[in-house]
Amino acid sequence: MSTVGSVEAKVREQAARARAAARALSVATAAQRERALESIAAALRDAEGEIRIANEADLAAAREAGLPAPLVNRLGLAGRRFEAMVRGVEEVRALPDPLGEVIEAWERPNGLRIEKVRVPMGVIGVIYEARPNVTVDAAVLCLKAGSAVLLKGGKEADRTNAALVAALRRGLEAAGLPADAVQYVGGGREGARALMGATGLVDVLIPRGGAGLIRAVVEEARVPVIETGTGVCHVYVDGAADPDMAEAIVVNAKCSNPAVCNAAETLLVDAAAAPALLPRLAAALREAGVTLRGCERTRELVPWAEPATEEDWAAEYLDLILAVRVVDGLDAALEHIARYGTRHSEAIVTEDPARAERFLREVDAAAVYWNASTRFTDGGEFGFGAEIGISTQKLHARGPMGLREITTYKYVIRGTGQVRG
Amino acid sequence: MSTVGSVEAKVREQAARARAAARALSVATAAQRERALESIAAALRDAEGEIRIANEADLAAAREAGLPAPLVNRLGLAGRRFEAMVRGVEEVRALPDPLGEVIEAWERPNGLRIEKVRVPMGVIGVIYEARPNVTVDAAVLCLKAGSAVLLKGGKEADRTNAALVAALRRGLEAAGLPADAVQYVGGGREGARALMGATGLVDVLIPRGGAGLIRAVVEEARVPVIETGTGVCHVYVDGAADPDMAEAIVVNAKCSNPAVCNAAETLLVDAAAAPALLPRLAAALREAGVTLRGCERTRELVPWAEPATEEDWAAEYLDLILAVRVVDGLDAALEHIARYGTRHSEAIVTEDPARAERFLREVDAAAVYWNASTRFTDGGEFGFGAEIGISTQKLHARGPMGLREITTYKYVIRGTGQVRG
Repeated sequence: MSTVGSVEAKVREQAARARAAARALSVATAAQRERALESIAAALRDAEGEIRIANEADLAAAREAGLPAPLVNRLGLAGRRFEAMVRGVEEVRALPDPLGEVIEAWERPNGLRIEKVRVPMGVIGVIYEARPNVTVDAAVLCLKAGSAVLLKGGKEADRTNAALVAALRRGLEAAGLPADAVQYVGGGREGARALMGATGLVDVLIPRGGAGLIRAVVEEARVPVIETGTGVCHVYVDGAADPDMAEAIVVNAKCSNPAVCNAAETLLVDAAAAPALLPRLAAALREAGVTLRGCERTRELVPWAEPATEEDWAAEYLDLILAVRVVDGLDAALEHIARYGTRHSEAIVTEDPARAERFLREVDAAAVYWNASTRFTDGGEFGFGAEIGISTQKLHARGPMGLREITTYKYVIRGTGQVRG
Repeated sequence: MSTVGSVEAKVREQAARARAAARALSVATAAQRERALESIAAALRDAEGEIRIANEADLAAAREAGLPAPLVNRLGLAGRRFEAMVRGVEEVRALPDPLGEVIEAWERPNGLRIEKVRVPMGVIGVIYEARPNVTVDAAVLCLKAGSAVLLKGGKEADRTNAALVAALRRGLEAAGLPADAVQYVGGGREGARALMGATGLVDVLIPRGGAGLIRAVVEEARVPVIETGTGVCHVYVDGAADPDMAEAIVVNAKCSNPAVCNAAETLLVDAAAAPALLPRLAAALREAGVTLRGCERTRELVPWAEPATEEDWAAEYLDLILAVRVVDGLDAALEHIARYGTRHSEAIVTEDPARAERFLREVDAAAVYWNASTRFTDGGEFGFGAEIGISTQKLHARGPMGLREITTYKYVIRGTGQVRG
């Protein structure tokens, strides 16, 4: 048997064990699942020493291999990060249970009583980069939502992940739940490919990471995928914007964390407001260290802005760079966003309610904002308590995905002997 | 440019036009969309002559090519079928509008007001076999739900579909909506492939048809898919079943329409009830023309049953054939269903509420029934008014998909200048 074949067989076998574990998990009570997360937090604390040793080994190998500093940084669990990770488990444990909710109930004229009930997804696959905190975070969210999880992280974190998953499994067993509800998928790229092809065994696959990873999963997967991530988000400053509010929102949307998907990448300014407002916005952004790439009309008002090219309108910089375009009012702004937006988060700043409502209605995006920063598109900020990612597709879940968004439903129908005529 | 390349370019260009049409459709009012369906019904009636001529040509070509009789039959729009199809348009028109519903609304401590609002999906692709009635049915459901639709039907119906789509487009234009909201994708297999690969342009692809077509779409598509169809549905007759009710449900689940996915394919009988009940059930099924394929214990009680093999437990016969297995109570029934079921529809017949509730809770399927036939898994029977298919996946929609199930949502957030700390 070839290596590829044997990796595939192993992953399918893991997925089959995950499915069996998911069955056990689906009949566990909320209290049992809570106890399991408690016991996982304890198991992680008990294993802190061995986890740190494994993490040091991963870090040393990464430095030796010359990995870029930001990647090495993400790999680390030093200092407070370990404790923050374990506290995250306890926070998820304390969230309201998402399962069993009767979403709707009705009775048919023939007497059939139909209930639409929230139930676990089953087996969730998560493919991510070399970030060991995602291992624990994704696993406990899936367990809280009653699903088994197959984790496939970046190989640079393999040692750390092995130690973390061993602790997670011990925690499950200590709580009387099957260890196979959490499994780590090895086998490098072939392992990822096998996971993406495990039709009938994996109910949904969630990629978490950069644009390249997500594109690869969307292209290759034959199991259902929730696409997450890419955000070319816009702030449109309307002619009727309050100047102070516009400045605060634009600076916050760009600068409060430029590396994340809900940060603004393009500023659109209504031509009616640009002469008075754009120089002020530009100065505030420069003050915050932002490089501007502007259209011709922008550069007339802000001569120090670099010239923007067509590529800039589609760019997700994830950096202190902002594309700036002067547009002829709301229609031109809507047109620009429809063309270049990635349907993540879009904001209008205006004191004109009619224009605001038109923007909210006509923009096709997971989250549309009136007089608020795009940076609020986040499970925590929405009040979901936690998030496994931000969906940029329209199927199943859109925007921040909390516990409910990784469940499904079934119809429970109670009859008295009804047959169909 | 190669033929494959030019087909792909054409389909992507169609999809881009569909996206532009979807934008116009998304801002149309419910009244406008209703008027469009009215005007589509009128356009179909006006075009009846040319549609019948096109359909005759497809039928003649199909007979000449020696297509099997059931396929030729499905292709036809003769007699009452045409009128039924047009009346279907009027029924969908009259359904409650699914859009704009505020699914949830809440306020955050920082004053942000968040609404989760039902909005159109955008562009929906439908891939189906040579059934012209699906062309009209799928198109009007998508339009009613505010989405543009790209239709790809079996090539044996290409002439009929061209005439139908021309009428649909005239109807849209007469109502002042863009004709490109309904487009037919040509180019045979290459056209289908291009549609399946149109990432970023097609929001969801729904295959409607036999197991082969659905598998091909699930394997090949890179856009999000809702898997529909395959149903290996079970009826479990428990030891505490009412014999009359058991007979009525089993015969109905198998015989009322054996060709559809919600028909029962396997009968499981509790060993405690089998000696008294199975011969009676078997006689009733034989009376209805059903061939039985039984396990050893079944054949001891029903000697005329054919022997079942392992393949029978996984078979979707879609015919008057039923696999029969005697099982040792509820646990064995649950085990069998978990192993061989396709998570479509599963039923228990029992007078024991505890066992019934355990079945309803533990069986993982889109629809689980207590004392009712599996045949009720249907949009019309659930009260959805219409259905575009029955989902057998867990992502987005499960079971019968009506209008709501082909919509999505977005978050609308209204603030007063909030920025993220």
